[in-house]
Amino acid sequence: MKDGLVIAIDIGGTRIKAGLLDFNGNFVEKISVPTEAYLGKEKVLSNITSVIKNFMKYKVVAIGVAVASPLDPEKGIIYYPPNLPGFEVFNMKAFLEDRFSLPVFIDNDANLYALGEWWKGSGEKANILLCITIGTGIGGGLIFKGNIWHGAHGFGGEFGHITIDPHGPLCNCGNKGCFEAMSSSYFLIKYIKDRLNEGEASILSEFIEDLTPKLIYEAAVKGDTLAIEGFRIIGTNVGIGLASLVNALDPEVVVIGGGLSKAGMILMDPVKAEFNQRVLKGIRDRIQLKLAVLGEFSAVLGAAYLAIKGMGGGE
Amino acid sequence: MKDGLVIAIDIGGTRIKAGLLDFNGNFVEKISVPTEAYLGKEKVLSNITSVIKNFMKYKVVAIGVAVASPLDPEKGIIYYPPNLPGFEVFNMKAFLEDRFSLPVFIDNDANLYALGEWWKGSGEKANILLCITIGTGIGGGLIFKGNIWHGAHGFGGEFGHITIDPHGPLCNCGNKGCFEAMSSSYFLIKYIKDRLNEGEASILSEFIEDLTPKLIYEAAVKGDTLAIEGFRIIGTNVGIGLASLVNALDPEVVVIGGGLSKAGMILMDPVKAEFNQRVLKGIRDRIQLKLAVLGEFSAVLGAAYLAIKGMGGGE
Repeated sequence: MKDGLVIAIDIGGTRIKAGLLDFNGNFVEKISVPTEAYLGKEKVLSNITSVIKNFMKYKVVAIGVAVASPLDPEKGIIYYPPNLPGFEVFNMKAFLEDRFSLPVFIDNDANLYALGEWWKGSGEKANILLCITIGTGIGGGLIFKGNIWHGAHGFGGEFGHITIDPHGPLCNCGNKGCFEAMSSSYFLIKYIKDRLNEGEASILSEFIEDLTPKLIYEAAVKGDTLAIEGFRIIGTNVGIGLASLVNALDPEVVVIGGGLSKAGMILMDPVKAEFNQRVLKGIRDRIQLKLAVLGEFSAVLGAAYLAIKGMGGGE
Repeated sequence: MKDGLVIAIDIGGTRIKAGLLDFNGNFVEKISVPTEAYLGKEKVLSNITSVIKNFMKYKVVAIGVAVASPLDPEKGIIYYPPNLPGFEVFNMKAFLEDRFSLPVFIDNDANLYALGEWWKGSGEKANILLCITIGTGIGGGLIFKGNIWHGAHGFGGEFGHITIDPHGPLCNCGNKGCFEAMSSSYFLIKYIKDRLNEGEASILSEFIEDLTPKLIYEAAVKGDTLAIEGFRIIGTNVGIGLASLVNALDPEVVVIGGGLSKAGMILMDPVKAEFNQRVLKGIRDRIQLKLAVLGEFSAVLGAAYLAIKGMGGGE
């Protein structure tokens, strides 16, 4: 079973990304289409089906699926995906197996992003890989010997909800000072906006109602003090969170991805400065902090690996 | 190989505890002697040798060793044990294998405390067990499917050095606001002493120079406001730290041991209150927080299991 192809699909709230890959992880084809989540469950399922059908003319042996949703990876049931309205509790695995008569392997997108980076990206098949994605929230994944750490109840790797500062801002989860509440792009935008409203001088002041991480990044590149300070605060918080995770788990490699990671050294310099202050001396020089390299198809690669491994390949 | 006996020994800075056990974990004999660490390396090795020799009249198949030291469990080398002066870098496994012509299995005491609780204590062979010990420092151990999580460089499970409060007190490790720096008996004593020095009324004021966790506990039981407040603060910090660890790792069971855990509900009530505030809703009611039950022979039991498993038993 090493000469077939797999279909891998990453179902996000905005886009469906998919690929047809061989067992070595080479893309034969790839595609990205809008999810159209606002049109409801049936339309999303129809879009997913179309994408997969497109690849079915080839000799496909399995389907790997990443979904932006809490889920039970064994049963394949997704639970109340926040960005896929109408799905509520839905057996995605059974739906696809029934539709395409192929084995389906499924996991959530953050875990499969980490698995993709482990397989073909910065993770380099490390024995223990810890991955975080910094975007509108903080996603996480822990890969141990090529397996996803699911925890006892499927919540393993929820790194966005470790406490960074017990007196910090309220998080969506109800806790105070979570990693996610203090390091996301939402926090960055709010920080910049608050400072602008206090009268801070910045080239960003004309964009106060339309701030994006990209605009703030571009201002930082131009030397804007407020934008640089925003990334310094985010980076410091990321450094605190990563040092806690690394001191607890002692991974071989740490991979940092997600939208904000595109800021590169503007983010990573303060991350590394704070991380080095807080990580245990015995491992300080032995832990590699790396930027993710696979970009938007990382979870597709992870989903492909999941399917390939499920079919007995992937060694 | 299920009918032999193993010797298990726990080498601490103060006492050497040891037992002779069958493959089911039943003690045939047990012993506890002073380590006499202050008399130096040769005296400690002589005490260890005497304890083991004492059991060698039986049909022993292996030796399990817990040491209060950073170590390489494969090679059996201990590195600069802080409470065993003179050892510096020493191959404990080679020393004992050479002396007794038996296979020796070794790990650090915090990991084997966790493994002991997993095998015969509150851990009940959980798929994922997270254990912390609260004493002069915070020890930790993560047991995954009966195996110790060592991390990539032997530092896995150093839960004492996750950050609880980035602006908190300086820790011995050089970081600020570590779990250990804010939840240990050292912190409790310092807190009480500082408050007494500020003139706080308490039945502890006559013991200001001789405060111990036990005295503070007894005062709390008698209703002393300051003593209760001390445990409330420690418990709150433990709750913050545990919630971070649980949100990241999603264990099945959490076991809390060590000297301070003897305070029982006086410690655990604030632990649980803060933990429940901060742990993710999806697992809040599914994670069991338990007190350790094995007491001072927990690491001996862990060392016994390590040896038994090494010899092909322990299923």
